[in-house]
Formats: sequence, C-alpha cells, structure tokens
Amino acid sequence: MNPLTRLNTLINEVVDLQHAASLLEWDEQVYMPPGGASTHGDMVATIRKIAHEKFTSDAVGRALEDARRNGTSDGDESDNEKLVAVTAHEYDKALRVPADFVAEQAQAVSAAQHAWAAARRQSDFGAFQPHLDQVVALKRRYVGFFPPGVHPYDVLLDDFEPSMTTAEVHELFGVLRPRQVALIRELTARPQVDDGFLHQSYAEAGMTEFARNVVTAIGFDWTRGRQDRSVHPFATGIGPNDVRITTRFVEREPLSLLFGLIHETGHALYEQGIAPAFARSLLGNAASLGVHESQSRLWENLVGRSRPFWDFFYPALQQQFPSQLGDVSLDHFYRGINKVNPTLIRVESDEATYNLHIMLRVEMEIGLLDGTIRVEDLPELWRSRMQEYLGVVPATDATGVLQDIHWSIGAFGYFATYTLGNVISAQLWASYLGAHPDRDDQIRRGDFAPLLDWLRTNIHQHGRKYKAQEIVQRVTGSRIDPQPYLEYLERKYRPIYGIDRAG
Amino acid sequence: MNPLTRLNTLINEVVDLQHAASLLEWDEQVYMPPGGASTHGDMVATIRKIAHEKFTSDAVGRALEDARRNGTSDGDESDNEKLVAVTAHEYDKALRVPADFVAEQAQAVSAAQHAWAAARRQSDFGAFQPHLDQVVALKRRYVGFFPPGVHPYDVLLDDFEPSMTTAEVHELFGVLRPRQVALIRELTARPQVDDGFLHQSYAEAGMTEFARNVVTAIGFDWTRGRQDRSVHPFATGIGPNDVRITTRFVEREPLSLLFGLIHETGHALYEQGIAPAFARSLLGNAASLGVHESQSRLWENLVGRSRPFWDFFYPALQQQFPSQLGDVSLDHFYRGINKVNPTLIRVESDEATYNLHIMLRVEMEIGLLDGTIRVEDLPELWRSRMQEYLGVVPATDATGVLQDIHWSIGAFGYFATYTLGNVISAQLWASYLGAHPDRDDQIRRGDFAPLLDWLRTNIHQHGRKYKAQEIVQRVTGSRIDPQPYLEYLERKYRPIYGIDRAG
Repeated sequence: MNPLTRLNTLINEVVDLQHAASLLEWDEQVYMPPGGASTHGDMVATIRKIAHEKFTSDAVGRALEDARRNGTSDGDESDNEKLVAVTAHEYDKALRVPADFVAEQAQAVSAAQHAWAAARRQSDFGAFQPHLDQVVALKRRYVGFFPPGVHPYDVLLDDFEPSMTTAEVHELFGVLRPRQVALIRELTARPQVDDGFLHQSYAEAGMTEFARNVVTAIGFDWTRGRQDRSVHPFATGIGPNDVRITTRFVEREPLSLLFGLIHETGHALYEQGIAPAFARSLLGNAASLGVHESQSRLWENLVGRSRPFWDFFYPALQQQFPSQLGDVSLDHFYRGINKVNPTLIRVESDEATYNLHIMLRVEMEIGLLDGTIRVEDLPELWRSRMQEYLGVVPATDATGVLQDIHWSIGAFGYFATYTLGNVISAQLWASYLGAHPDRDDQIRRGDFAPLLDWLRTNIHQHGRKYKAQEIVQRVTGSRIDPQPYLEYLERKYRPIYGIDRAG
Repeated sequence: MNPLTRLNTLINEVVDLQHAASLLEWDEQVYMPPGGASTHGDMVATIRKIAHEKFTSDAVGRALEDARRNGTSDGDESDNEKLVAVTAHEYDKALRVPADFVAEQAQAVSAAQHAWAAARRQSDFGAFQPHLDQVVALKRRYVGFFPPGVHPYDVLLDDFEPSMTTAEVHELFGVLRPRQVALIRELTARPQVDDGFLHQSYAEAGMTEFARNVVTAIGFDWTRGRQDRSVHPFATGIGPNDVRITTRFVEREPLSLLFGLIHETGHALYEQGIAPAFARSLLGNAASLGVHESQSRLWENLVGRSRPFWDFFYPALQQQFPSQLGDVSLDHFYRGINKVNPTLIRVESDEATYNLHIMLRVEMEIGLLDGTIRVEDLPELWRSRMQEYLGVVPATDATGVLQDIHWSIGAFGYFATYTLGNVISAQLWASYLGAHPDRDDQIRRGDFAPLLDWLRTNIHQHGRKYKAQEIVQRVTGSRIDPQPYLEYLERKYRPIYGIDRAG
C-alpha cells in the first residue's frame, strides 16, 4: 500500500470517530433524556480518547513521514500535498501535548466551568478568580509545549485560526477600533429607530415555519441535513451529507429565531458544500473558524438583514403575522431590525457594536498570556474598556466579565474568530458584487442560487485545503482587510439613522 | 491494578463503543437525513471494528486469565465470578471466528439482503435461492469454528440464547405443537368474534397520546428514556439510563400502535431495570433474547390484552374515541382485540398462532444446518407445514418463505427466542400470581407497580448474571416449561370462543 493510501486509511477511522462524537454531542443537546448524561459522557470521552490515540499512533507518524519523503508528485497546490501538510501540522501539534497535561486540563476546566456558572449566578468574580488563574497558568504551559514564536498567543490562535498571528489580529483591530467607536458615537447621537413592533407576541410555530421556508430558499439541502430545537442554537456537520442545525424561540426577541436559524444555515451551507472526497480526511473541515463565521455572518447579516432580502420576504412575513406587522411599513421594519444599541451583552449585540465586544476580550486574553494583565484586574478593566468602546458600564460582573463561558472552558484564542468572520464576510460580499453587479437584484427576487454557487466554488468545496489568508487572497485578491467591513457598516447604518453618506 | 479492575477498565471502553454504535443505529432509524446513510455506515462500521479489536486484544485475554487464576474470592454466584465467566465466554467465541470470515460474511449477507428484498417484491424464490445457499454454507463454516457439540445448531442458538441447546428447543416444541394445533382447530371451528370496530379511522395523535399514557402508567421512566416514530418499532438500551422506544401507526390496524408500544416498553423496562453497576460491563445486557422477549410479551399480551387491563383502561380509550367505540361494550372490545385468525404472515399473527409460525421456521433452520433439508425444498415445505400447522397455504412465496428478513441477514438461531419469550412470560405470570394472589385486582385498578417491582427484583436487575434456564429456575422453581403457556392459552381463548373450560 502506498504511504498516502495508508495514511488515508488510518485517518478515515479517526474522522469516523470524530463524526460519531459530534453526532453524540448533537444528541445530547437535542434528544437525550436527562438521565443519559453520564452514559453520554462516557461514550464521548472514550471515543475522543481512542480518536486521539489512533491519530497520534506511530503508524500515522510513519505514513506521514513516508508520504512526505515520497512526495505526491502532483504539485504543491494539489489536494494530496495539502492533505499531507494539514495532517502533519495537526499530528505535530497533537504529539507535543502530553496526555497527562490534557487530563489535568480537562479536570481543571471542568471545575472552572462549574465555578464560573455559580459565580455568574451570584455575580461574584472572586469565586471564579482562582479558577481563571489556573486556566491561564495552564494556557501558558500549553504554549510552552510549542516552539517559541513571536508572541505566545500565536499558539492559541492557531487552534482556531491556523497560522493566524497575534500581530495580524492587532493590526486588524487597530484599524477597526477607532472607526467603529466613532460610528457608534455618531449613530447614538441621532434619534433612535423604533422597533416597538418586535415587542409583541409572535407564535413560535408560525415563526418556525417562516424561518424554515427562508432556510429552504437560501439553499439548505434537507436531504442532507435537518433542523431541531435546542437550548443554544448550533450547527454540526457529520460530514457534508449530514449537517444538523438547531434553533430556539425567545419570547421577548421573536426574530432571533429567524436570524439565528439563518446564521446556523450559513454554517451548514459551508459544511454541506465541502468536497465529498475530503469527507473522511482532515481537509473535510472548514479553513478556520473565522472563515466558518464569515459564512454564517454573510447569510445572517449581509443577506438576511439587508433591504433587498426584505423586499422579497417581507410580504410573506406580514402575511404570517398580520396583526403584528400589517401596519408596519417595509421601511419601518427594515430600520427596526437594524437598530444599533450598545449593550452590555455580547450575544445580544448588533452588527455595528459586535466587534468591540470581541476586541475587548481578545485584548484581555493577549494581556493575560503575556503577563501585562492580571486576572484580578479584569473586572475593573472590563468596566473601563466598555465605557471607552461602547459608552456603557456593567453594574455587575454577571453582565460584565462573567458573561461568557469561553474562558472557563479554556477556549482562549476563540473570540478573535468572530471578528475575523465579520471582516471576511464583507470582503466576500464586495467581491461577489464585483463578479455579479446585479447582486442586489438577485436577492430582491429571491434568487440565492448564484450566491450560493459562488460561495460553493470559491470557499466551501475547498474545505481546509487553504488557510484563511490564502483563501481570502484567492477570492478577493487581497489579504484579510478591515476596510470593506467598515465601509459596509458606514454605508448601511448612516442612512438608517438619517445621516448623509459623507458623515 | 488487580486483574478484575484491569478487565473492567478494558471492557468499559468496549461497552462505551457498543453503546455508541447502538445510539447511531437508533439515529439512523429515527432522525438521520437520507443523505447521511453512507456516513452513518462508515461510523458504525469503524466503531464496531474497533470494539471488536479492543475486545479480542491480548490485554483482555491476559486480564481474563489472571482474573480466572486469582479467583475473585467471593464465591461462584458473585457478580464478579459471573462477570468473568460471561466475559470469558464471549471472548472465547470472538477469538474463534477469524476476521476474514467476518468480512466475507458481512459482504455475503449485504448482497443476500438486497437479493431477498428484490425477490420478495417479485415473489421469486429462485432469485434468492443461491444467496440463501451461500448463507447456509457460511453458517456451517461458522459452526465449524467451535468445538463439535451435540448438534451443529447449538452454536447458532448460543449467539441469542447462551447455553440453550437444540435438544431443549426440540423437546419444548414437541409439547407445544400438538396442543397449539389442536386449540386452533377447536377455536376456528367456532363462530368468529367481531372486530369490525377496528376497521374504522382512528386519529394517530389520539392513539399516540393514549398509548403514551399507558406506557407511563405501567412504569416507563421518561427521565431515562424517550419515544419516537420509526418505520419498524424497536427498543434500544444505551445503558439503563437512556432507553429509547419507537412506534409506528398503521391505518388499517389502529391498535397496533398501542400494543406495539406496550411490547417495546416491556423490553425497555427490562433495560431500565438492569443494575447500574453492570452498565459498562457485559453483565449490562439481558440474560438472553428469549428472556428479553418474555418481558415484552408479558406486558403486551398477558397484561395488555387481558380483561382486567381493559377494565381499567377501556373508559379512557372510549373517551378518546367516542365515535368509534362509544357503542362497543367492554366485552365486545375484549373479544375483538383477542380474535384468533390463522394468517400467512408471522408479524400479523395472534397469541394463539404465533408459536406455530416460529416452529415452522426453526425446524427449517435446524434441517438446513444438519443437511436434512435443502434450500430448494423450502417453498414446498413451507406450504405443506403451513397447511399442517395453521390450515392456510400461501399462494405466493412473498407471503410464504420470503416474508422474513432474518435468513437474508444470517440471523439463524434468532427465531426460537420468540417462542421462548412466550413460554417464559406465562411461567412468570403464573409465578407472580403465586406471590400476589390479587394480581388481577392490581391490574384492574391500574396498579402496575407491584408487578414491575417483582420483575425488577427477580429478572431485570440481574442483567446477564444468570442464563435463561437459571433465572427461570430461580424465579419459578422449574426450568423453561411449556405447560403454563398452554394452560394460559386454553384458559383465555376457550371462553372468548364460547367453549367450556374442559374443552
């Protein structure tokens, strides 16, 4: 058997196990009876352990070495070359982290997550602080397993954004921060738009039916996926042919079911579009979480909160909810669903403010890692940065530094991917307009196939063949660049708030 | 680490993998989008392969050997002694069958199953015959991997009924056959009961609600289980704390949803009742498929089709379906749902005729194995036996020898467990009456807790600690014995058909 076939045979099994673990985790969120939690935990832990053992086996190491020595003789950009490179990169990372450390970290974050949940309930940062100290110490030790780079945080970013550097993120944020802060000040100085029509009762069944029709229209393939309800919405891909999305209904935010489902559909379309040939390999994943988020954000915001989108869908929504929306004009509705309102809570924030929530967190993560910020200083730092970026200050840590689960589960390096997603989404949106000058007319007539087809061709099918910077460069002709997102925000929100385009 | 702890640690992982495969198979039947079939197949195949590799590893062999050499010093009947014995039995069996043979058989039955489905559609036994020839040849080779016993079929029985012998089954059938044939002749000579009330339209939603209420009343623990719809009803236990049952609605047989769900609940109550300490070991299974079937049959038939059961539930069913049942008396209803009607199709057959369908099949399996019956003779033999046992003859092979999937998937040895289940269920039912002389009054007032409690204590909790014969002996004081079932049938059905008890 040639080395590549040997490698593929070994990795197929690893991916099958990862898929199985993903499906079991989906089941846990969606259909598992409460008593099943411990059994589920055992199953998933065993499967993930075996997947790790099989991936880090000598057999994989030898197959990789042989494959690299032989070369695949079909060029640097070939699927096979990329397959070997991506697998080697992950193999090298997996081997560097000792099993003892993984077990120690698993125990620490399990305790930290419970402590965080209790601390948030009581808004008591002090109760969480020692756990977070421990998590940060673990993250530093984790970084120590890797060759020293320019910045220790580079190692953490790589887990979510392969090859992305702290310097690149810093540079990006340096451009975004002042322009977004200025835009928000400009908008909040204007009279607020009215979204009173959202504060009524909407039937969940009707909203779900409408949302599923939208999801169908934008191209979700129901023969290769399904939709269910869960406490927290998510999308999970068990290969491209079984992609599952979930939604929830929140009484006081009736449209969040729709936008949440469009968001998850954006993720799902990416997963459904990955080349079937990659399905049982490490190329069968997204390029990065940032690129993944660019797909969910593009469909949720650039498409789903756009005026052309509602030109097409608003009559149907009005028909579904005549008593709530019969007297609300399309213009009124459009402005209402695009209300900009600096809030304390990241997950409730709008397009114009979201990145600032992210920057504040990522800056803190970087500071915690390089020692320029201490855990005990976080609550005060949080308050001052919120004042500086968004002009609002949390009265309690529960609505401040304790609001997100990420740090308690050790997910340092994750937050940046949300902003990368926003930024990339606007670059893609602008590039698509270049290729399809009738973009807005397509959306206005409910013709989403050309856009999906373009994303399939340019992004989805490649899976993890290219890194985020590479794929953005290939599609847009430039590296990840904040300008299109800033221009998109300014061009969209100034008119909504009655400000002249020039500012 | 002592050998037993070592053994348990290794087996825990194997059971986790088996549980995961079961849950994935549940998902496949219940929620998987159609496109996911191939991905599901890969996942389940990989997990089952790894479970087999881990189970047959040298590490398990050494731990077993050490555990047997050391003894567990807590007696022959202890959980630990039984754990080692059951694990050693399965380990020995798993090692005897070469991986090449398993792969060859998997391919052959996959082809045979497709051929069977097509042959059944066209009622063309000839198209299936070469595949069945091959399956029988494989079964003979399979038997050859084991030490020669009294009868080659003993090896096949052991896969479903550990330690049960062909001689025991022969003896049992020898008693059942003439008495059941005679009873059916006696009943069918009498005027048929009327079940016209079943041939009306019943709403699926109302029937499901009623059935779920019944399931709750008899003791299904919804915090450790759930119910969904599937094409073929089944129950699957992912350990005692996550047990899932399914049902289906058949327009022309409205009550089959109810009786099917009670049947699956009988299986589920067994699974939910197995001692939690056994959950991640090989003792965390049923004693045998026959004992499993005794639980489903007991709840479906001895409880669910009894007069006391409907004394309690009939008013609620009438209330649910007033237009269909308002004018049907309880007596009329009871007789209607217990109509005896020799039919061509096993899965549609009633309590009084079911065993005869089974005997016919098991006799053929035994004959195919020992060479006294040839595959090509099956259709004719089927017709003559059906005439002899049930007085009906199939006009086509589709409604005759081709009706069941079992042979095409190589499940030789399985059919006997249905009749063992019927027989054991009546033994337990009689023993319960001995311990609870007010049994019928309990049922009549809807008090199912004492029965469930008795089954939990005497059967469920022990999992696979005892063999079928052992557990029946412990509970009833005798080995598996057909008399109580025959007495139950005669005592129940003669009055329904207006025959004096004496016959």
